Amino acid sequence: MTNTKYDTTEYLKSVDAYWRAATYLSVGQLFLMDNPLLRRELKATDVKPKPIGHWGTIAPQNFIYAHLNRAIQKYDLNMFYIEGSGHGGQVMVSNSYLDGSYSEIYPRITQDEQGMQRLFKQFSFPGGVASHAAPETPGSIHEGGELGYSLSHGTGAILDNPDVIAAVEIGDGEAETGPLAASWFSDKFINPIHDGAVLPILQINGFKISNPTVLSRMSDEDLTKYFEGMGWGPHIVNVHGKESMEAHQIMAAAMDDCIEKIKAIQKNARENNDDSLPTWPMIILRAPKGWTGPKKDLDGNPIENSFRAHQVPIPVSQDQMGHKDLLINWMESYKPEELFDEDGYPTEIVRQNIPDAQHRMSTNPITNGGIHPKTLNLPDYRDFALEVEKQGHGQFKAEDMVTWGKYLAEVEKLNPTNFRAFGPDETKSNKLFQMLDDGKRQWMEEIHEPNDENMAHAGRNIDSQLSEHQCEGWLEGYVLTGRHGMFASYEAFTRVIDSMLTQHFKWIRKADELDWHHDYPSLNIVNASNSFQQDHNG
Amino acid sequence: MTNTKYDTTEYLKSVDAYWRAATYLSVGQLFLMDNPLLRRELKATDVKPKPIGHWGTIAPQNFIYAHLNRAIQKYDLNMFYIEGSGHGGQVMVSNSYLDGSYSEIYPRITQDEQGMQRLFKQFSFPGGVASHAAPETPGSIHEGGELGYSLSHGTGAILDNPDVIAAVEIGDGEAETGPLAASWFSDKFINPIHDGAVLPILQINGFKISNPTVLSRMSDEDLTKYFEGMGWGPHIVNVHGKESMEAHQIMAAAMDDCIEKIKAIQKNARENNDDSLPTWPMIILRAPKGWTGPKKDLDGNPIENSFRAHQVPIPVSQDQMGHKDLLINWMESYKPEELFDEDGYPTEIVRQNIPDAQHRMSTNPITNGGIHPKTLNLPDYRDFALEVEKQGHGQFKAEDMVTWGKYLAEVEKLNPTNFRAFGPDETKSNKLFQMLDDGKRQWMEEIHEPNDENMAHAGRNIDSQLSEHQCEGWLEGYVLTGRHGMFASYEAFTRVIDSMLTQHFKWIRKADELDWHHDYPSLNIVNASNSFQQDHNG
Repeated sequence: MTNTKYDTTEYLKSVDAYWRAATYLSVGQLFLMDNPLLRRELKATDVKPKPIGHWGTIAPQNFIYAHLNRAIQKYDLNMFYIEGSGHGGQVMVSNSYLDGSYSEIYPRITQDEQGMQRLFKQFSFPGGVASHAAPETPGSIHEGGELGYSLSHGTGAILDNPDVIAAVEIGDGEAETGPLAASWFSDKFINPIHDGAVLPILQINGFKISNPTVLSRMSDEDLTKYFEGMGWGPHIVNVHGKESMEAHQIMAAAMDDCIEKIKAIQKNARENNDDSLPTWPMIILRAPKGWTGPKKDLDGNPIENSFRAHQVPIPVSQDQMGHKDLLINWMESYKPEELFDEDGYPTEIVRQNIPDAQHRMSTNPITNGGIHPKTLNLPDYRDFALEVEKQGHGQFKAEDMVTWGKYLAEVEKLNPTNFRAFGPDETKSNKLFQMLDDGKRQWMEEIHEPNDENMAHAGRNIDSQLSEHQCEGWLEGYVLTGRHGMFASYEAFTRVIDSMLTQHFKWIRKADELDWHHDYPSLNIVNASNSFQQDHNG
Repeated sequence: MTNTKYDTTEYLKSVDAYWRAATYLSVGQLFLMDNPLLRRELKATDVKPKPIGHWGTIAPQNFIYAHLNRAIQKYDLNMFYIEGSGHGGQVMVSNSYLDGSYSEIYPRITQDEQGMQRLFKQFSFPGGVASHAAPETPGSIHEGGELGYSLSHGTGAILDNPDVIAAVEIGDGEAETGPLAASWFSDKFINPIHDGAVLPILQINGFKISNPTVLSRMSDEDLTKYFEGMGWGPHIVNVHGKESMEAHQIMAAAMDDCIEKIKAIQKNARENNDDSLPTWPMIILRAPKGWTGPKKDLDGNPIENSFRAHQVPIPVSQDQMGHKDLLINWMESYKPEELFDEDGYPTEIVRQNIPDAQHRMSTNPITNGGIHPKTLNLPDYRDFALEVEKQGHGQFKAEDMVTWGKYLAEVEKLNPTNFRAFGPDETKSNKLFQMLDDGKRQWMEEIHEPNDENMAHAGRNIDSQLSEHQCEGWLEGYVLTGRHGMFASYEAFTRVIDSMLTQHFKWIRKADELDWHHDYPSLNIVNASNSFQQDHNG
């Protein structure tokens, strides 16, 4: 069934070349504004006046991306990428540039030397592109900067998208945030028959801004316990001290294992109608921060595998050309002459690891407003109106939320695979009873009736984790991939996700300015229990 | 050394009586406004017009509190209580009333039948007290309502308080929130020589508002892995289906084990100057939601061990007296005649389980502005002024944050045990360099220099977890217990804890209205990298 070509050393050399090319492009974006292939002597005017951006996360992320590209081809996957680490925005740009999609979307950035020069110059530059994944980045539904929402976004995106896998890269800094720590429980809400899968790839590079990370100093045994306890099946890939080809071999093996497990889970679930809670696989990649970059700084302190690799690791800029050899040697270590032809176009060995146009993560339609975005089918609200005139004023009792809940239950029925409601266990106290009675709550853990009520392995409401961050993150992932939804919570508590809302609106505003972006359904937030109605939560 | 009296069945009968008394008082507060000891027939006017409050969490929490009281006496502990579950405010009120502190603080609420009547009436009643732990509750530094911060608060409180144990009750609903999920990593920051201890007690009662909880449906094995992975030593106490006395025996044994482990860790650390990262113990209590309450509702659906136990579990109110027997039978099941004497004063068997006045959790000075609150000792800011006049304008370069960092480093030196700085790995990028160089970062995991910098097992800065929620929660716990501190973050990200700040200010405002509350040091939030200075995080 699968093509064994992708398991050969020969093919892994292509993965390696692809990885080197992506990383070369990422370093170039950080430092250069001209002379992108270093085909003449490096002058001060070739270098940016003030390189601003992040290096530490780059090579491990490009390594992951290269291996996802391999897996997509080997297994014919419908996959997209979420960059959780926050910064290192070159990653998605470089990979999109390599696969050609960047030039399709931004025709000025051609796949030749001149296009590469423009690509480099625009990064983190006035009037250019952001230093983190952002709406202008092809393939992104997730903004960097404020951390913690990558796994919630990935999970929201694959709900009701049974054929999609969200490859969610998660930084070990991000993994220390509250929202991310709670989002591991997403596995308890993914139905293996009707929903797709998330493949979390935790990148443990050991450091964040200027500190080590909590998870990196945990033993493999403790990490395994932590994730197994939450129901995941972790695969640890440790590339510290490994040669490139050995690193590729173990990563490819782990990736194959994960993809085959996901496929086996889905096959069993769908063929046998078995929607019991599976153990979803995940990858833990232990790789040095600043991998493949400069080893030591001018004082002899380590850069690679240290916090010093976080941002710009060597002092080279337009005004600081004294150590330009450090940059040249670093960039040449990727052997650009093997990666780009005379015109600056990616060579055959690099291109081998690029999925065909329909399978590129950078242009997966899920990341641009959804695969088959449909308008929300709404019932006529008049059908739910209270018959006050007919029955007479004051002749019967009714409540706004109860009545509206009947309408919303009908919305769920009319849009059985593209409308969902999320909440932090407040749907019932918000009196949207009919939504629960008809639509049920999706929940993959055991169900114990009659102690429980309205729980089901497949349901249109997800309100069984008490986390506003999860609800908002799931909803964002769901609507950014072209579906419709709502998040209802007490007014007192929606404030918990105030910063997330702002971040989402910023994303939408920016996407709106780009004509290649499709429209996105609105983000519907319902503030219930307003002011005087809050009995307990003021 | 320890008194074996506390291990006898005889003594556990006192724990049981105490537990029953606290729970009786908690149910009474929910429903009654008169006739508190049911010494005459229950009339409609004895019952509240609209009982509002929570039942589900009560009996398990009182069970925990009763066993903490036992441990305090057995081991002579300096302990206080944090009620993380949010609602069930009767718990801390009932226990404070039983131990006499409530009457000391609120003399109208006497320890007799009339005082009990007033106690019952005021709960969750106009002009009365809140339905969750709040500033008016003796012994509380933690507000209910918005969930997730109990373990951060407890950890902040015991930093630099080496003799104190924070008993932190955590609800299984709360444990699903982001902030709480990340706060388990607090163990990585507690120094066993200089700081006290937290004893997390996770109350898994199985349900939240109308849903089961994620953690309750995890197996004991998975729970153990989850917590062991994060470095805790979990002790599971499962009282489902157990008779009271058996439940007391297993809880007492687990509690003793935990306290002895904490003492052993601290003894070893302090006698041998061994500040390696210990495995701190914790308790996981599996108890039915609504334990000891009504078993079934009028439709035959389970109340105990169901979400139906969450709030007011039976339909008894001033206007609904038809089922008053349900309430009477429930309250009489605690045998109030054994618990309160003719005057309504707690009987000898109940009082046995009350620590002496100096050891009551409800009056631990830590919960009221601190044990020995000291004014912050500040250096003269003039000593840090730049000598612009002397050296000449434009003759040298300096930066505000670098200069201020020198001042703050001096503040840390002058207040070596009562000033701390917290941050989400931004102290260095905020250029407060001198604080790190002099004060170091407290971090109990392994330290790998030269890849790491400024890490130490004892330090005045805690900025090594990338979680704004943790930083803010630790700071709140630190200042609410009478010390001083600051939290510096980029302006773009302090917004993440917007709702926490509001909650803290609400707490301070309410505490300020109560003359028995001491003053609290200010909460110092530093917004750095303002607007135009944000290179990446906008």
